[in-house]
Amino acid sequence: MTQEIAILITGGTMDKVHDTQTEGLIFDPNGKTRIGAILKQGRSRSVRRQILFQIDSLEMNEAHREQILEAVKNAPEDQIIVTHGTGTMELTAQFLEGKVEHKTVILTGAMRPQSLGRSDAGFNVGGAMIAAQTLSPGVYGVMNGRVFKAQELHKNTETGRFDD
Amino acid sequence: MTQEIAILITGGTMDKVHDTQTEGLIFDPNGKTRIGAILKQGRSRSVRRQILFQIDSLEMNEAHREQILEAVKNAPEDQIIVTHGTGTMELTAQFLEGKVEHKTVILTGAMRPQSLGRSDAGFNVGGAMIAAQTLSPGVYGVMNGRVFKAQELHKNTETGRFDD
Amino acid sequence: MTQEIAILITGGTMDKVHDTQTEGLIFDPNGKTRIGAILKQGRSRSVRRQILFQIDSLEMNEAHREQILEAVKNAPEDQIIVTHGTGTMELTAQFLEGKVEHKTVILTGAMRPQSLGRSDAGFNVGGAMIAAQTLSPGVYGVMNGRVFKAQELHKNTETGRFDD
Amino acid sequence: MTQEIAILITGGTMDKVHDTQTEGLIFDPNGKTRIGAILKQGRSRSVRRQILFQIDSLEMNEAHREQILEAVKNAPEDQIIVTHGTGTMELTAQFLEGKVEHKTVILTGAMRPQSLGRSDAGFNVGGAMIAAQTLSPGVYGVMNGRVFKAQELHKNTETGRFDD
Repeated sequence: MTQEIAILITGGTMDKVHDTQTEGLIFDPNGKTRIGAILKQGRSRSVRRQILFQIDSLEMNEAHREQILEAVKNAPEDQIIVTHGTGTMELTAQFLEGKVEHKTVILTGAMRPQSLGRSDAGFNVGGAMIAAQTLSPGVYGVMNGRVFKAQELHKNTETGRFDD
Repeated sequence: MTQEIAILITGGTMDKVHDTQTEGLIFDPNGKTRIGAILKQGRSRSVRRQILFQIDSLEMNEAHREQILEAVKNAPEDQIIVTHGTGTMELTAQFLEGKVEHKTVILTGAMRPQSLGRSDAGFNVGGAMIAAQTLSPGVYGVMNGRVFKAQELHKNTETGRFDD
Repeated sequence: MTQEIAILITGGTMDKVHDTQTEGLIFDPNGKTRIGAILKQGRSRSVRRQILFQIDSLEMNEAHREQILEAVKNAPEDQIIVTHGTGTMELTAQFLEGKVEHKTVILTGAMRPQSLGRSDAGFNVGGAMIAAQTLSPGVYGVMNGRVFKAQELHKNTETGRFDD
Repeated sequence: MTQEIAILITGGTMDKVHDTQTEGLIFDPNGKTRIGAILKQGRSRSVRRQILFQIDSLEMNEAHREQILEAVKNAPEDQIIVTHGTGTMELTAQFLEGKVEHKTVILTGAMRPQSLGRSDAGFNVGGAMIAAQTLSPGVYGVMNGRVFKAQELHKNTETGRFDD
């Protein structure tokens, strides 16, 4: 159970930071990700991280999903975590489903940015790390302390939950 | 993958709080646990929680471990998380190993109390939640983003890590 | 130095919270303020708090400023703190200047919401509490660990600082 | 009101950090102070900082207090903040009282370490910064959002408050 894991980063709420200038939430202008901080706080071994892009998942289109698929296929690791906005996580899961053999792909994200404190990011990534190591090949989502198969992954936009 | 999970609480660093009077770290005098706050921050569904006792795992003896075993056996759930101090987590895992059939038992803990912020508690519990739902019956530890079988669970006391 | 202090709340960044639904920063829909949490964390005695309204200071108009002036005049306390957005804090300070006798009025705010953690709110309110007790009657701003008279209060919108 | 301020650091709860090895609270083994982080979070201009020593104030003796007095006298600044454990803050205040002319000396500290989050350190230092700039020469303590003259500074050890 100590195979190599890779984390592919695509943005989403998890990676947003507060901008005092505009008083809004933005992605780091220098393209930094918070995944390193999340793993460090979890006292996890560092794993390979690759930033594909950093966007709201509502802005994600077919080209972005092709890019994720390529990165999953090209990764030397068989255990892949994809950080993703929650808005269209299910669409990406369904897009990837059936296109990757022999790899366990876990999508995860957060409802509250890691940089704001009291975030669900660490809890979700901690779960995704374990899911990547324990689940058989396939595409899954890990949110709210639960595992969902690609076709069962669905966000209730009213409650912001995947387990409703 | 939506079977019921129970969390049995035995104390450990995860549940300690700062005491301004003595300026040390203690268990809550009213016996409260931080597990509720951890699950809430992780936006996890609440699960059944049972406080067995709250002690440093270095003070844990045979009687305490018998008590944990009884609670595991008596739990109506088949997926059990046991929060535990890291100091003797491996002894309890080995004690439980082979004594429980048909149940998946996950021991987890933290190196930094949840109440102090920037803690590994959420990351570990998030992982334990997933491990409890994905692993076949047996006794395991989840720490540092990794899963360890009972007989492979070992804390390196110099580094404070289980994956060294 | 133990006279009574009142805090008049008008909104501003200090009181904003993250909304997981819209993923933006909003005022609490139930009108709650974070001032209670700030004072509690500072282990300060509770003081009288009065919410006038909760708005971005960029939306503040003459009617709002009249309302602040009335509340300052009507307050039984001689030491008044006004929480305020940083965008037009100087306009409100100049508006109040000369209109209130015998009272020490301290405007303060934050560049990062208290609810996001690592905020300057506590530092600024801690300073405002002391300024309200130590300064002679007049209108002042407390930001960045500094005291500014009403006519010297000026935010550098590029740096987000009042001491540049 | 923009004279220079110096912060003399003597330790106390404010500067303690959690040690995962011993699971206790210690001073940083490399002698680092959290004052820089406190000022940065408060978006305060950096001021001159001088670490005299880092000890629990219960261990402070006459020699330590002489060292503080010398540092206050030798400081080129007229506005001095001394970070100090709360246990004997009043003894140091009384020791300094009357020995320093033409300088405003503010003692401050915290009941909860800055590194643990939700600390009163920022609130107190924010207040001390303002007190140093607004009070006439003399020795004062700033705690719980209040200013106390040296002879009125007294910690209620039962409540951990200075304003009881």
